[in-house]
Amino acid sequence: MTKTAVCVCSGGIDSTVAAAIASQEGYELHFFHASYGQRAEGKEKAVVEQIAAYLGAKELKLAEIPFLKELGGSSLTDIKRAIPAGGEVDLDNPGETPSTWVPCRNLILLATASAYAEVVSADAVFVGFNAEEARSYPDNEKEFVERYNAVLEKAVASFSQPPTVKAPLVDLLKPEIIKKGVEVKAPLHLTYSCYLGDDKHCGVCESCLHRRRGFKEAGVDDPTEYIQAGEKPKS
Amino acid sequence: MTKTAVCVCSGGIDSTVAAAIASQEGYELHFFHASYGQRAEGKEKAVVEQIAAYLGAKELKLAEIPFLKELGGSSLTDIKRAIPAGGEVDLDNPGETPSTWVPCRNLILLATASAYAEVVSADAVFVGFNAEEARSYPDNEKEFVERYNAVLEKAVASFSQPPTVKAPLVDLLKPEIIKKGVEVKAPLHLTYSCYLGDDKHCGVCESCLHRRRGFKEAGVDDPTEYIQAGEKPKS
Repeated sequence: MTKTAVCVCSGGIDSTVAAAIASQEGYELHFFHASYGQRAEGKEKAVVEQIAAYLGAKELKLAEIPFLKELGGSSLTDIKRAIPAGGEVDLDNPGETPSTWVPCRNLILLATASAYAEVVSADAVFVGFNAEEARSYPDNEKEFVERYNAVLEKAVASFSQPPTVKAPLVDLLKPEIIKKGVEVKAPLHLTYSCYLGDDKHCGVCESCLHRRRGFKEAGVDDPTEYIQAGEKPKS
Repeated sequence: MTKTAVCVCSGGIDSTVAAAIASQEGYELHFFHASYGQRAEGKEKAVVEQIAAYLGAKELKLAEIPFLKELGGSSLTDIKRAIPAGGEVDLDNPGETPSTWVPCRNLILLATASAYAEVVSADAVFVGFNAEEARSYPDNEKEFVERYNAVLEKAVASFSQPPTVKAPLVDLLKPEIIKKGVEVKAPLHLTYSCYLGDDKHCGVCESCLHRRRGFKEAGVDDPTEYIQAGEKPKS
């Protein structure tokens, strides 16, 4: 019998590699992407469509979560707040909540993806949570995934088999994730990481910084087009 | 220092009594109501506004969760599926998932309310989960609340104090909840329980049946206007 996976995908490297792992493990893929008012949404959606097609997904489900934008409080969803440049914050010891934090975002994303998983009777929900993100965001930790799986057992109907959230990258840092991506033939060339959502990557936000450094440290050719100094972003 | 509570309120008896308990315990109330495509939404929203005003809430936050309606699969959100009359299903031994089940609804509601709670730095999130609902819906059990609180600790930012979900009715059946409501001066006369969303209660859906029987068994005067046999519902 075919195993079915819902793949939560932002279009970035982590969730794309996680989806490629699900594909290699023989799951039928149901992609899930959420719009919660993030600046890069238009670009993310376009990229996720390409990645889902590349990996032969059976379906791509788009979910609108307008409440997170309305709630505000994050530089990712509030155009008036500046996105910090990478390196401005010491991620191992930030001293305060990063401005890019979106309140309870991963919990809401997982709960919403789990509803979809319940409807399609998925066996698993694949996510790209990893050790690099867990430095700043507790909702990327292994403990978060384990506790989520415990509550999920009680969150689906008594007669539904609860899916299991799988985070195959949970112990990895970015260079290891990129190497893993090459190994499982993930379409890294299609991925998009920039917080800003312009056509090319800005190259300087925290997310672009992780991406650049990740490819370099992994010794893998970086396929990304970054905006050059002096070049005007096209948005 | 004032304690702050987010009160998740559908406008029904359970969540209204829970909110009245929070009020009695001295919390400043922030009401939260979600629209997820439920048939009774228009009526629920109007009623929640009245209840929030009655209990002196500082704020009422309305969240749209359009994905649940889009996902379908429930008679509560799909107008083409019939709402079962009360008694059609043996709730203690249903044999299958009730048609009124909305996939992962309470998990999504709690996650969304928790984002709001994180932003207003709430100490608690009050919900009306109870033993009567837990007969059909596992996401009303004490175990669900405990497991949710465990994951919530990891779902908020490292520098946020996670709120605690409180379900003061978790061990109670409907008649006990109604007696408790009288004790804490909950505005039971303002509450609305019917799945259908007409101006008056239909009196025959599962939710109306619980309401009717609850008042009767509690020995409390039922303030509800039910549609009489032969009367045409006004919607």
